[in-house]
Amino acid sequence: MRHFLIINGPNLNRLGLREPDVYGSKTLTDLERELMLFAEKQGFQITCFQSNHEGDLIDAIHEADEQYNGVVLNPGAFTHYSYAIRDAIASVSLPVIEVHISNVHSREPFRHQSVTAPVTAGQIIGLGFEGYQYALLALHKKMGEKKDEA
Amino acid sequence: MRHFLIINGPNLNRLGLREPDVYGSKTLTDLERELMLFAEKQGFQITCFQSNHEGDLIDAIHEADEQYNGVVLNPGAFTHYSYAIRDAIASVSLPVIEVHISNVHSREPFRHQSVTAPVTAGQIIGLGFEGYQYALLALHKKMGEKKDEA
Amino acid sequence: MRHFLIINGPNLNRLGLREPDVYGSKTLTDLERELMLFAEKQGFQITCFQSNHEGDLIDAIHEADEQYNGVVLNPGAFTHYSYAIRDAIASVSLPVIEVHISNVHSREPFRHQSVTAPVTAGQIIGLGFEGYQYALLALHKKMGEKKDEA
Amino acid sequence: MRHFLIINGPNLNRLGLREPDVYGSKTLTDLERELMLFAEKQGFQITCFQSNHEGDLIDAIHEADEQYNGVVLNPGAFTHYSYAIRDAIASVSLPVIEVHISNVHSREPFRHQSVTAPVTAGQIIGLGFEGYQYALLALHKKMGEKKDEA
Amino acid sequence: MRHFLIINGPNLNRLGLREPDVYGSKTLTDLERELMLFAEKQGFQITCFQSNHEGDLIDAIHEADEQYNGVVLNPGAFTHYSYAIRDAIASVSLPVIEVHISNVHSREPFRHQSVTAPVTAGQIIGLGFEGYQYALLALHKKMGEKKDEA
Amino acid sequence: MRHFLIINGPNLNRLGLREPDVYGSKTLTDLERELMLFAEKQGFQITCFQSNHEGDLIDAIHEADEQYNGVVLNPGAFTHYSYAIRDAIASVSLPVIEVHISNVHSREPFRHQSVTAPVTAGQIIGLGFEGYQYALLALHKKMGEKKDEA
Amino acid sequence: MRHFLIINGPNLNRLGLREPDVYGSKTLTDLERELMLFAEKQGFQITCFQSNHEGDLIDAIHEADEQYNGVVLNPGAFTHYSYAIRDAIASVSLPVIEVHISNVHSREPFRHQSVTAPVTAGQIIGLGFEGYQYALLALHKKMGEKKDEA
Amino acid sequence: MRHFLIINGPNLNRLGLREPDVYGSKTLTDLERELMLFAEKQGFQITCFQSNHEGDLIDAIHEADEQYNGVVLNPGAFTHYSYAIRDAIASVSLPVIEVHISNVHSREPFRHQSVTAPVTAGQIIGLGFEGYQYALLALHKKMGEKKDEA
Amino acid sequence: MRHFLIINGPNLNRLGLREPDVYGSKTLTDLERELMLFAEKQGFQITCFQSNHEGDLIDAIHEADEQYNGVVLNPGAFTHYSYAIRDAIASVSLPVIEVHISNVHSREPFRHQSVTAPVTAGQIIGLGFEGYQYALLALHKKMGEKKDEA
Amino acid sequence: MRHFLIINGPNLNRLGLREPDVYGSKTLTDLERELMLFAEKQGFQITCFQSNHEGDLIDAIHEADEQYNGVVLNPGAFTHYSYAIRDAIASVSLPVIEVHISNVHSREPFRHQSVTAPVTAGQIIGLGFEGYQYALLALHKKMGEKKDEA
Amino acid sequence: MRHFLIINGPNLNRLGLREPDVYGSKTLTDLERELMLFAEKQGFQITCFQSNHEGDLIDAIHEADEQYNGVVLNPGAFTHYSYAIRDAIASVSLPVIEVHISNVHSREPFRHQSVTAPVTAGQIIGLGFEGYQYALLALHKKMGEKKDEA
Amino acid sequence: MRHFLIINGPNLNRLGLREPDVYGSKTLTDLERELMLFAEKQGFQITCFQSNHEGDLIDAIHEADEQYNGVVLNPGAFTHYSYAIRDAIASVSLPVIEVHISNVHSREPFRHQSVTAPVTAGQIIGLGFEGYQYALLALHKKMGEKKDEA
Repeated sequence: MRHFLIINGPNLNRLGLREPDVYGSKTLTDLERELMLFAEKQGFQITCFQSNHEGDLIDAIHEADEQYNGVVLNPGAFTHYSYAIRDAIASVSLPVIEVHISNVHSREPFRHQSVTAPVTAGQIIGLGFEGYQYALLALHKKMGEKKDEA
Repeated sequence: MRHFLIINGPNLNRLGLREPDVYGSKTLTDLERELMLFAEKQGFQITCFQSNHEGDLIDAIHEADEQYNGVVLNPGAFTHYSYAIRDAIASVSLPVIEVHISNVHSREPFRHQSVTAPVTAGQIIGLGFEGYQYALLALHKKMGEKKDEA
Repeated sequence: MRHFLIINGPNLNRLGLREPDVYGSKTLTDLERELMLFAEKQGFQITCFQSNHEGDLIDAIHEADEQYNGVVLNPGAFTHYSYAIRDAIASVSLPVIEVHISNVHSREPFRHQSVTAPVTAGQIIGLGFEGYQYALLALHKKMGEKKDEA
Repeated sequence: MRHFLIINGPNLNRLGLREPDVYGSKTLTDLERELMLFAEKQGFQITCFQSNHEGDLIDAIHEADEQYNGVVLNPGAFTHYSYAIRDAIASVSLPVIEVHISNVHSREPFRHQSVTAPVTAGQIIGLGFEGYQYALLALHKKMGEKKDEA
Repeated sequence: MRHFLIINGPNLNRLGLREPDVYGSKTLTDLERELMLFAEKQGFQITCFQSNHEGDLIDAIHEADEQYNGVVLNPGAFTHYSYAIRDAIASVSLPVIEVHISNVHSREPFRHQSVTAPVTAGQIIGLGFEGYQYALLALHKKMGEKKDEA
Repeated sequence: MRHFLIINGPNLNRLGLREPDVYGSKTLTDLERELMLFAEKQGFQITCFQSNHEGDLIDAIHEADEQYNGVVLNPGAFTHYSYAIRDAIASVSLPVIEVHISNVHSREPFRHQSVTAPVTAGQIIGLGFEGYQYALLALHKKMGEKKDEA
Repeated sequence: MRHFLIINGPNLNRLGLREPDVYGSKTLTDLERELMLFAEKQGFQITCFQSNHEGDLIDAIHEADEQYNGVVLNPGAFTHYSYAIRDAIASVSLPVIEVHISNVHSREPFRHQSVTAPVTAGQIIGLGFEGYQYALLALHKKMGEKKDEA
Repeated sequence: MRHFLIINGPNLNRLGLREPDVYGSKTLTDLERELMLFAEKQGFQITCFQSNHEGDLIDAIHEADEQYNGVVLNPGAFTHYSYAIRDAIASVSLPVIEVHISNVHSREPFRHQSVTAPVTAGQIIGLGFEGYQYALLALHKKMGEKKDEA
Repeated sequence: MRHFLIINGPNLNRLGLREPDVYGSKTLTDLERELMLFAEKQGFQITCFQSNHEGDLIDAIHEADEQYNGVVLNPGAFTHYSYAIRDAIASVSLPVIEVHISNVHSREPFRHQSVTAPVTAGQIIGLGFEGYQYALLALHKKMGEKKDEA
Repeated sequence: MRHFLIINGPNLNRLGLREPDVYGSKTLTDLERELMLFAEKQGFQITCFQSNHEGDLIDAIHEADEQYNGVVLNPGAFTHYSYAIRDAIASVSLPVIEVHISNVHSREPFRHQSVTAPVTAGQIIGLGFEGYQYALLALHKKMGEKKDEA
Repeated sequence: MRHFLIINGPNLNRLGLREPDVYGSKTLTDLERELMLFAEKQGFQITCFQSNHEGDLIDAIHEADEQYNGVVLNPGAFTHYSYAIRDAIASVSLPVIEVHISNVHSREPFRHQSVTAPVTAGQIIGLGFEGYQYALLALHKKMGEKKDEA
Repeated sequence: MRHFLIINGPNLNRLGLREPDVYGSKTLTDLERELMLFAEKQGFQITCFQSNHEGDLIDAIHEADEQYNGVVLNPGAFTHYSYAIRDAIASVSLPVIEVHISNVHSREPFRHQSVTAPVTAGQIIGLGFEGYQYALLALHKKMGEKKDEA
């Protein structure tokens, strides 16, 4: 069975606790539970991981290369400056899709630049928690394509 | 029944004819046919429109405000400079989701800036033809939310 | 009798329909009716034109050169990037005055630059619908000057 | 009776003495006399003030808040760097309209930026001495609106 | 017989009517007539097209792909911002040569950047009406090369 | 007894009269009275000065060099462009501490740069009227250090 | 009793060991001891924390939200690029005051920008170890205000 | 007899009192006395003026137009931002030569830009007090040229 | 008989030896021979010169002023920074046409700027060796015009 | 016996696993083994350390100050933004030499800036695994110099 | 007897031949003759040198270090980019004064930057041929100072 | 026997004569002698060349292509602007290693950019005269690799 890794970066453990006008009132636990149910319905498996530590995210991406079929990554604020995470993504062969809950392009200028986007397979921005689901669908779809090629 | 408008901007009528390494080998007709089937399966209606004329796209967005429940928009190269299309999006009350077939962030620098993104509901980038489907799902989902609020 | 052309650019057909906090609640028809009455009272004639198509605006400016004594132009968002409209203005001998309803300088940064302003006779910004009237008065005044010179 | 203040900033006391190709051959006294006649005809009162001292302009704006119904301000070269005058405008409740005699946008690049414009009610640029008259008309009009609201 | 398309963009229909110090006193009709004679003498056929509408230029480039052996394109002011025309050029397989009548590099700074140049076969700048003739010769020459390769 | 000079720059005479959401509702007189009481309690003397004139602020800084033991300076908007005040600070040997009532870094971008900060002893920003008190304490502390060194 | 958290970021464990001309010769232990004594005298409690790990600082800020009444934060070099720490500050409801021992504005250009400042309550810069004390006083004062409001 | 005006701007009254490594140890009085002697020897008259007030410098330049044959101007820090002084220079017909005592180009970057230089007759930089003497010689020389032309 | 000078700048002696994908496989000798034949056929004379020394190119341009009727110049990499060559071109009265073999606009960003273009008569870019021939034709044509004027 | 520390930053644990065209096909273990052999032959000792955690690298640099005679540091992507690592290097007295395996200057623009380079003793770039050996030789040589001075 | 070297850079051999509105109608020979007479009158010796070759100018500056007491240098267009000449000036111990005949600050933007100015003793700009004489006087004066110090 | 060319660019003939704090007190002759001895010990041959003329350096690089096995190049200040030297390096097939004696990244900002680095095999910076030796070792090593491949 296909297995995808969901990685949430810094401050996403604060979802639902603060700034509900930006991120809504649901918590990270809510998000992860919804995704679990969604994955089950779609017929694939997911594992969820969150950390505020850049190094932990890099380690997780490296390890994913052997254990998962794809990664859904919300790098939080690291999106805007972590060239180390960018290099981690570039160093693995599995597809990584970048997700942002809010529309970063209608927020502060520093949020308009993503240093990770160029090495990801694609980005889904501003579509709330559902964005993660579409990212999973896209990874699932990509797996099918590869199989067809093989 | 819900009805969404798919708008494709300049040069997307050339899909499949040239640069298959960037856009794949399927044509605009293929894309539209796939979306029709997808919409039917999901239980909503879609209309497709393509033009190379900025003014036509603006007119289409204006007219959509009364006739549709949402817009999926691939503004093509207008993404990068058409403040007129941006203003058209801002002037309508229905949600607009921006879609790009290829990962614009791994291409030329001028493609990294979207002047329309800040006024859209969200963006889906680099996920191929499927990106349009996720955008439709997201519009569909948004409709449900509004209904719940009412 | 003197005859002036009023040109309104993209999205100004949406006046009064959306964003009333920026543009007020009156429509384009209201604006044009008010200007007609004003022109009548001042003793000159006006013709009104609106389009969302850059090419139509260029054509209108070209044709105005032979048929009118001056142009009041609100280029909408084209203000910020249409060097083609700028060249159209530079290619005619009649005076063109640029008008903006809202104070563009207290809005998004991209609205602070006008590529058309350098080749216009002047600009009136942020004074609402009345701005068009002052522009007409200024064109009227300029005609008198020319006559005096002759 | 309504009473407006006309403030002219640095070097405008040199009007008509030099650079007639930019500013015309009439003097500041000519300008002020014309405006006096215009105000009389329109049925409101004006007071004129000129200084080359930034601090004097700030003081005048502050004092105007209690004594006048609006200000027509030509900040001269302070337009381009005096954030102190900008703050003075922001600190008063009466409307301030910015006027420039010449079309600053067709002159040196440094004249294209106005640091005061964002906090004014509007700007009139390049329409010569008449620009002040339109500004007075606009202030007069604004007074009527406020009365209507009350 | 080889057949080339000459496309002239916005405001080039004003050639000879205004700004003769920049563009000379000959009209677009003069230019097209001269090119016809030149083509006849050289032994190939040309068709001439002019429009002020960006979308028309894009459509013309697309259609040229099947009907002509090459395009001589003067994009006018679109040169400086129309990424949509750039993409149109990139989407066709026939060679496109960019021509500018005046030396854009000795004019305003915004004219120093060409967003279309990177995807054209070459550029000829500042050599007046003759520039179109050299462009035709270069297309003609390119055809010969291809034949030699075949 | 130690004696410090408090200098408030342009528009700070408007404190409490306008923009209470930014600066609070207390007036400059309130601020100066509070500081007088604070100084008395701490056992040092203060003199307060305010002007909207850049030259007056420069003169005051020069004269302070001989008469006071330190300066607390809120340069208002001059903070962002007055290199003349910067040079005045650099030309005196007594310590100058820069104070801003509001958090300038969460306001407009032009307020993020201080041209005076590099030549001051330190800055206190966003801590309201209390900021002046901490500045006085810091000057007082510095005097003690110097004495210890001697 | 009120309880504040002092957070010192990367390399502040090196205080007093190197670059005494920039940071003085006292160590981090000296600083923390002085602050303990100061807190005791003022009648509130403090806890001190230092880490060179960005993720640890984020975690500490999150956890502080429930356990402390305010934070004094010296983010060290993270000040200049850690948007993740900025988001952490924005995600908590307790006030955070930013402190820098040296005058960062008279050092290298990269130290002139603080990405965290916009979301803090205020900043104290260049006033040495005493800066932490003034920050504590300001937090203490803020608590009083809140109580008064309640 | 020819009569030149020497204008020294902000902080030049501090010459010799501080920063002797940059400006030397002689005072403004020394400078003015030396220039008086020099003028006497050369056979022309000079008047010296210093102010820290931008408005005073502007007034002085205006008044000089009728009373003197040329101006030697050291605008101090106003050099770098006072477009108002620039306009004052442009508004008078007598030649103005800009002088800086120190080599501003080997100091802070903000000192490398002179907004006044483009409208002066020339600049003398980094040659100490003697720079004023060469400026006087140059004005003297220019007078001779004009006479020759007449 | 008309006589034109062909100047090739730095590294053009390496033509055909390296980077054949950029410059083709023909050598400088091939280019010069082709041009000789072309000139002979057209009925004018040419002289060819190549140097890697900026000073030699400047000297050659100076000397050309008296000896030739025009210059075809490929400044190689000097195109992008040699303001000295630019000044040399500006100092001669004969027309200079700039030629680049490859399309510099589709190569590295530094090659997109030409500091010499503004003072040349025109540029031909990306048309290979033939570019030199069109440049010669254009010079030849210009000679005819001059004669017509005389 | 001299003892040097080799620090490899983020993603260098992926050496040889991916992107062999950039980094070659040897692994980190290969690199460390080669360096051990090299050190032995040269007569000094080395210790190797790798981490993807910025904080770990900072801690390692701090601790090296007392335990080693020098550091060879490949900061990976931290090179381009970690001012915290820069400060760590500046806070220790032992020499640090920066090494990059690939030629960062022929890769993406963001890799052209090193924020750590200014505080290191030197850099070796693009010379592959051998770069570490030259860095060790340079540290060894520096030790000799110090001894000579003593 | 003191001996100074006058170095004129690229294109100054064209003085008087072209662009007389910028540089006047006198030739380089005229300039050098005038300076010879001036030097004789002042009681010192000069040698004049001109070259269009950057390397020759560098060599001349190096050699001057032993043979002359100072250099007057007009680097022509090298002023704006020759860091090699800048380094040559920095590598010699004799004073170098930079001279420009025209006011470079009222010409093209690229002429506003001098890369050599920071390492010269001073600059004289826009004062025509006389500028060289003032530079010689200043070198002469500097020699006297040194003697006084000795 | 392998034979490498050492090229030193502008002002390196001044080594040891000036600025010993930057470059040490040894001369170019010392450097070349040391390298000769080093080469002899390592078993390969070297030739040394120095010039202040950009064209000479280009010629030397071209000629090296046939005569040597590699080049060690210190381009001096040409590093920062000579695109002509960059192109020369790109036009030869032998490896070129760039060396800088001092750490250019801790000096003036203009020294932080190398226009030659992208086309070299690698760079060694800040390691003094030894840098040349490591560069020779690296060239030597590269030769071995090629042989292994063959």
